[in-house]
Amino acid sequence: MTGIIRAQYEIHGDDVDARARALAVELSHELPTELAPERSHVSLAHVVDRRQNANGVGVVTIEFPELLAGGELPQLLVLLLGNGSLNEGVRLIDVDLPDSLGAAIGGPQLGVAGVRRILNTPERPLLATAIKPVGLEADGLAALAHEFALGGIDLIKDDQGLANQVWAPFEERVEKCAAAVARANELTGGRSRYLAAINTTADRFDERVRFAVDAGAGGVLVMPGISGFDALRRARDLLPDDGVVLSHPSFLGGFTSSPTHGIAPDALLGLLSRLAGADVVVYPHAGGRFGWSVEQCRSIGQFARRPFAGLLPTLPAPGGGMTLERVPELVELYGPDVVLLVGADLQRGGDARRASEAFAAAARAAIGG
Amino acid sequence: MTGIIRAQYEIHGDDVDARARALAVELSHELPTELAPERSHVSLAHVVDRRQNANGVGVVTIEFPELLAGGELPQLLVLLLGNGSLNEGVRLIDVDLPDSLGAAIGGPQLGVAGVRRILNTPERPLLATAIKPVGLEADGLAALAHEFALGGIDLIKDDQGLANQVWAPFEERVEKCAAAVARANELTGGRSRYLAAINTTADRFDERVRFAVDAGAGGVLVMPGISGFDALRRARDLLPDDGVVLSHPSFLGGFTSSPTHGIAPDALLGLLSRLAGADVVVYPHAGGRFGWSVEQCRSIGQFARRPFAGLLPTLPAPGGGMTLERVPELVELYGPDVVLLVGADLQRGGDARRASEAFAAAARAAIGG
Repeated sequence: MTGIIRAQYEIHGDDVDARARALAVELSHELPTELAPERSHVSLAHVVDRRQNANGVGVVTIEFPELLAGGELPQLLVLLLGNGSLNEGVRLIDVDLPDSLGAAIGGPQLGVAGVRRILNTPERPLLATAIKPVGLEADGLAALAHEFALGGIDLIKDDQGLANQVWAPFEERVEKCAAAVARANELTGGRSRYLAAINTTADRFDERVRFAVDAGAGGVLVMPGISGFDALRRARDLLPDDGVVLSHPSFLGGFTSSPTHGIAPDALLGLLSRLAGADVVVYPHAGGRFGWSVEQCRSIGQFARRPFAGLLPTLPAPGGGMTLERVPELVELYGPDVVLLVGADLQRGGDARRASEAFAAAARAAIGG
Repeated sequence: MTGIIRAQYEIHGDDVDARARALAVELSHELPTELAPERSHVSLAHVVDRRQNANGVGVVTIEFPELLAGGELPQLLVLLLGNGSLNEGVRLIDVDLPDSLGAAIGGPQLGVAGVRRILNTPERPLLATAIKPVGLEADGLAALAHEFALGGIDLIKDDQGLANQVWAPFEERVEKCAAAVARANELTGGRSRYLAAINTTADRFDERVRFAVDAGAGGVLVMPGISGFDALRRARDLLPDDGVVLSHPSFLGGFTSSPTHGIAPDALLGLLSRLAGADVVVYPHAGGRFGWSVEQCRSIGQFARRPFAGLLPTLPAPGGGMTLERVPELVELYGPDVVLLVGADLQRGGDARRASEAFAAAARAAIGG
């Protein structure tokens, strides 16, 4: 219990040393150090390293006593960037945690190998899609889910915009979609899973996860930007041990969009979502509807699967406007341990099952299978 | 139930019209409109206005059918900026909701008048401070709280960095601090309130709010950036009807720091925190430890108290490095309906009670009292 939390920050602009020292205070004591000198050796964070990156930007390492986190993810986030998020020019770029804190928070319960095991898919890239749009009735969404499962999609998720609207109320939708995927599995012998979007109020969150499990959903989609990062962990703990937790980046873009501020996407999505329990982390891949770079996306995939706090690795799920044509490029970039997320493109031809089959064939072909 | 949600966005960069239309789709259907034409009149969002602001930046208004929100705050956030947060150059600057949706989510239970009533302070600016630093034992924090209450501070809150660390475990700290403030009130006849920071995991959130209430806390501090905006609403619903909900901006800076992206601070803090239930909204005032402008801060105060969705107004609480010398300037800027938040400056002279008395005197003097 005397471990150290290490975080790296880019400090853009002038006065890097002074601003880094102020940041260490802001993220721990939040009180001028001269007012609490006797606490500084036990509960104050300290700048322990300062260098420049290739672009001349100051990069500092701050160490926090592990005890500051109190063993809980929310307080860890307060340490890593709480008030510091309000400081211009401060960008969190990397985190290293003691295994003890990793174990306390827990990370993914399935990870890459676990998801492959439950899907009985040891080698090829995994396939995901979303049922949408909002406004479609539950029967229509379930029919889509059925076609996707018949076509061989592994993870069929609610679109993030599906909550509890009148057109497809949560309970009706989840029951019908889970049943539709189960019927398809009976026909195909496959193991497709329906993942229910849990986007609801804090007091209804647990009951909706439980409802989804009871209805036969194979996991859930959680939006940490909306529900808080700890909602991923909470969903994980409510799921059975073969339940998949998928993290969706909705409402997280505030952090990721400035090159000089916030949290680098690889640290946010590859480390923090994983720490919180995501087996699969969705993000917008380069060249889709969003403006992220290939390098940024590649790095998310690396952070999601590199050694980190003793946690299982997380599957990157690049999406946001991907098409079948891009499958070879994505597999080349990420390797086979990836969830390929293709949404609208599977609905484009009017035959979701055939499009899904083509998607599956493209994924097998991409690894020479 | 056929109301309209209206949101305004700045669209920075080129191709404003096309990007605005794409944004409306992204925030509702998230599917090319040609794939679901029959849904477009019931569940698709639409761009209804487009103009330029004084800086030549495109400003668009998007209308969403109220039914898309499903009556829940988390889904409303998905509509307002969910995936759109990942789009460069998109900045949410204003929101207008039907009163029906305002009523469903609820907003502050006390508001400005309610907080004044429970504090028995009808006219002068209200006074707040924080007990800190983390690392101080519960007895030390309680002793500070006692001095602040004796000196006449209205709202004595845990610092946001106080969670459940070994030096001052949550239950011990909350019991001792609430008791210390109660003892001071008995001596002074005052109505100072201790607000407990609820920074914990999703599964412990409710029990900690309830514990704080049972221990005699007069309200709670919640960080929507950490726990999700709906945690404010949840806390409100768990508190008795005289319990104060204070919103703290920790981990929200990703949204606010870019002038071309995210959510404008007045909309984020003045409208969304208020909608979620904040009676008091804390933010870093200009000229403190953070770089916000006076104009930005003034606008937060205006948004917090302007007519909005039939909700009660919220008290702005400018903080982040304020000092007693700045009290006149703050009251001049915000008027008397403000919570003046001075933290470390009250500990600087080594006599927290005397500093608090000086703070109270400065607040009275600022309104000529």
